[in-house]
Amino acid sequence: MRKKRCQSGVGGYFNMNAEILCVGTELLLGSIVNTNAAFLSRELANLGVFTYYQSVVGDNSLRLKESLALSLSRSDIVIITGGLGPTYDDLTKETAADYFGLEMRMHEESLERLEKFFAQFNREMTPNNKKQALMPEGCVVFPNNYGTAPGLAIISAKNQENQENKNKTVIMLPGPPRELEPMFEEEVRPFLLKLKSRLNNSRDNIILTSKNVNIFGMGESQVEHKLRGFMQNSQNPTVAPYAKTGEVELRVTASGRDEKECLDLINPAVEKIKAEIGEFVYGVDVKSLQNAVVLKLREKNLTLATAESCTGGLIGKRITEIPGCSSVYLGGVIAYDNNIKISRLNIKEETLEKYGAVSEQTALEMCRGAAENLKSDIGVSTTGIAGPDGGTDDKPVGLVYVGVYYKDKETGGEIHKAARLNLSRRTHKDERELIRLSASSHALYEVLRLFS
Amino acid sequence: MRKKRCQSGVGGYFNMNAEILCVGTELLLGSIVNTNAAFLSRELANLGVFTYYQSVVGDNSLRLKESLALSLSRSDIVIITGGLGPTYDDLTKETAADYFGLEMRMHEESLERLEKFFAQFNREMTPNNKKQALMPEGCVVFPNNYGTAPGLAIISAKNQENQENKNKTVIMLPGPPRELEPMFEEEVRPFLLKLKSRLNNSRDNIILTSKNVNIFGMGESQVEHKLRGFMQNSQNPTVAPYAKTGEVELRVTASGRDEKECLDLINPAVEKIKAEIGEFVYGVDVKSLQNAVVLKLREKNLTLATAESCTGGLIGKRITEIPGCSSVYLGGVIAYDNNIKISRLNIKEETLEKYGAVSEQTALEMCRGAAENLKSDIGVSTTGIAGPDGGTDDKPVGLVYVGVYYKDKETGGEIHKAARLNLSRRTHKDERELIRLSASSHALYEVLRLFS
Repeated sequence: MRKKRCQSGVGGYFNMNAEILCVGTELLLGSIVNTNAAFLSRELANLGVFTYYQSVVGDNSLRLKESLALSLSRSDIVIITGGLGPTYDDLTKETAADYFGLEMRMHEESLERLEKFFAQFNREMTPNNKKQALMPEGCVVFPNNYGTAPGLAIISAKNQENQENKNKTVIMLPGPPRELEPMFEEEVRPFLLKLKSRLNNSRDNIILTSKNVNIFGMGESQVEHKLRGFMQNSQNPTVAPYAKTGEVELRVTASGRDEKECLDLINPAVEKIKAEIGEFVYGVDVKSLQNAVVLKLREKNLTLATAESCTGGLIGKRITEIPGCSSVYLGGVIAYDNNIKISRLNIKEETLEKYGAVSEQTALEMCRGAAENLKSDIGVSTTGIAGPDGGTDDKPVGLVYVGVYYKDKETGGEIHKAARLNLSRRTHKDERELIRLSASSHALYEVLRLFS
Repeated sequence: MRKKRCQSGVGGYFNMNAEILCVGTELLLGSIVNTNAAFLSRELANLGVFTYYQSVVGDNSLRLKESLALSLSRSDIVIITGGLGPTYDDLTKETAADYFGLEMRMHEESLERLEKFFAQFNREMTPNNKKQALMPEGCVVFPNNYGTAPGLAIISAKNQENQENKNKTVIMLPGPPRELEPMFEEEVRPFLLKLKSRLNNSRDNIILTSKNVNIFGMGESQVEHKLRGFMQNSQNPTVAPYAKTGEVELRVTASGRDEKECLDLINPAVEKIKAEIGEFVYGVDVKSLQNAVVLKLREKNLTLATAESCTGGLIGKRITEIPGCSSVYLGGVIAYDNNIKISRLNIKEETLEKYGAVSEQTALEMCRGAAENLKSDIGVSTTGIAGPDGGTDDKPVGLVYVGVYYKDKETGGEIHKAARLNLSRRTHKDERELIRLSASSHALYEVLRLFS
């Protein structure tokens, strides 16, 4: 009989399961959305660590202790977020130390870091800030590069008296996502990979590598439907979809002893995805449509201008999210009023009269007007009916025209075309914003398609 | 001895506590963020129903049943979201029915609604869609106006055999927020208010009314700090803060027998808030800065144009979120490149040379240029360094100038001014986007301040 080598998850190794326990009354009041749970679950899944439970409790020591006991009874790793701050109702560390019977001690390295942090921002350090450097004896400390509360881990194997919780790990991280996320990436991920190596009695450290396949024009459920078997059966690499606003990203993650071993597993999976849904794949590791546009224009040494009606500046906003976009994006005209379409984009009055502002002809004149007036190589335009009012039988809410104009300065050749889109989301209460977002995505996509 | 009349929460009535149990493997994989838990917690807090726990489990009948049992052991009301769809792994209703020992029966009214829904969108109804109209016997059904899965409630008092769970209520709602949120507002909220009236042996139905105080220029923690005592001690009305992107909203909610009774409780609390932090209150029930701007300009019959550099279209995007903004917002120029500042906004070349693109002088010329070129009453502008690169000692990342120009057509009087802002968020990893967002908010706020 052969020993079973793989239980589940990434790549033929023994695996751990984890659960996430978020502490914070503001979560129970609904004042903030729990993005930490989603972030951690996704990162754990990428590490091949599956999460069966997420929980939220308030800043209450008794309920936190009960919840921690329940979590430890059913999971190998418990990640607690929040409650590491300086005030009296921050009690995560203290509660965990109490649970494991550990003393709290001043961690000198953390105290020094705290003092430096306060000095750097010219802020006064109050006595209760020092509390943030108190740590349960024997824990692993994760420094915080974006705030004051260090993270920590208690590995309970060390505590030989408590046999029940042997080989259990409790990780505590600060609540603010801007502190938690980089701390996970820089400190917790390597920590977990080491834990995993040890569990597998491996002398090599296992590393993880990912590639992200960027998809536009297909919903997440369609992608899942098309690739379900492949996604479910793929263990190393794992393939997981992330729906972003109007796009889908497939993350392909492999574990192995080095980068090359990982990439040899990842690359065939990326090719397989392209073979199945290639017409919707607009890039690999390009992050977003707007980033893909900036990268492509930089590569081609071309400039872009925008002419936006129904999107009202959203295309410009998305492109200017990308640092350094100024080398390719010149700017644009938000032509909400028809007089501005005429005076700033040279739209002919007769075009507006004959075809209307929401028409293929207007979209075509707008993108050309943007390129000519703003002196760019490429112009892109949107005009449509975002609703909720203004729709008619002929031109219903959701009708959007996207125009694109490209004049090759060397050859004088032109591409000048418009697409008619029906972006209605009648079953959605935020229909207007979804139509606008989708219109801006289509516009960016049309710019990319000039070169495919 | 007097009978204790109030346990906690809104207005001198006996209260219930609730917990939220979200079902969905996609939550455990981190593919989606759990906005439902935040929405429901917030709505429950407004109803004076406090939530001590939120949990997430996957699409797994056994773990769901165990979690339901745990939740029922500690809470009066359990709201389950997700798992009401048509596929084999949607098993919330079936699991709850099994738990309470109830039969599943076809709910004819729901079946009819389903048939109509599919006919309306010309979609074929498959046999497993009918599963969505199967309901546990004796439950309350909540129709779904935005999708196919009805919601439901099981009131276990009816089930006399199970004494342990007497007076417990399990509410099940569809997972997609666009279906869950309107269903809560239209169906679940009145249902819970009735439940509460019955608990209080009141023949009158209790109603809830809210007013939202809109605040800009103060962080959520500052607002809390300033109003902590008032917020913690206020029971009817309750006062709760919601941090929105760059703004804070204080929701003041009262319960009473009618609208007047509620408003008589709410209005003094709103006045109290204004007395404490009035300079930061820009409106009551105006929803957002962009909505406040559109309302104010409509009231004054004035038009606006934008000139955006570092915000790259974000101000235009935010204003055009508001349906019907076209009566006051004409459009704008996204002047990312300096040549566009010169050619489209009449910025003097010498201004750019002498003071630079990021300067008070440029901001002043930009807003005036927008108003003059686009023929609006008011022009607003932004120019700044959003980073991460491009900062210097003199002009660091986060330096933004916001300009505003207003010419009164009748009197010829002008307001023309610029504000210098330091919007640096050095401790935040998404610093660029936060600076841009904050700059756009300040620009909208400066437009509002023209009239205060």
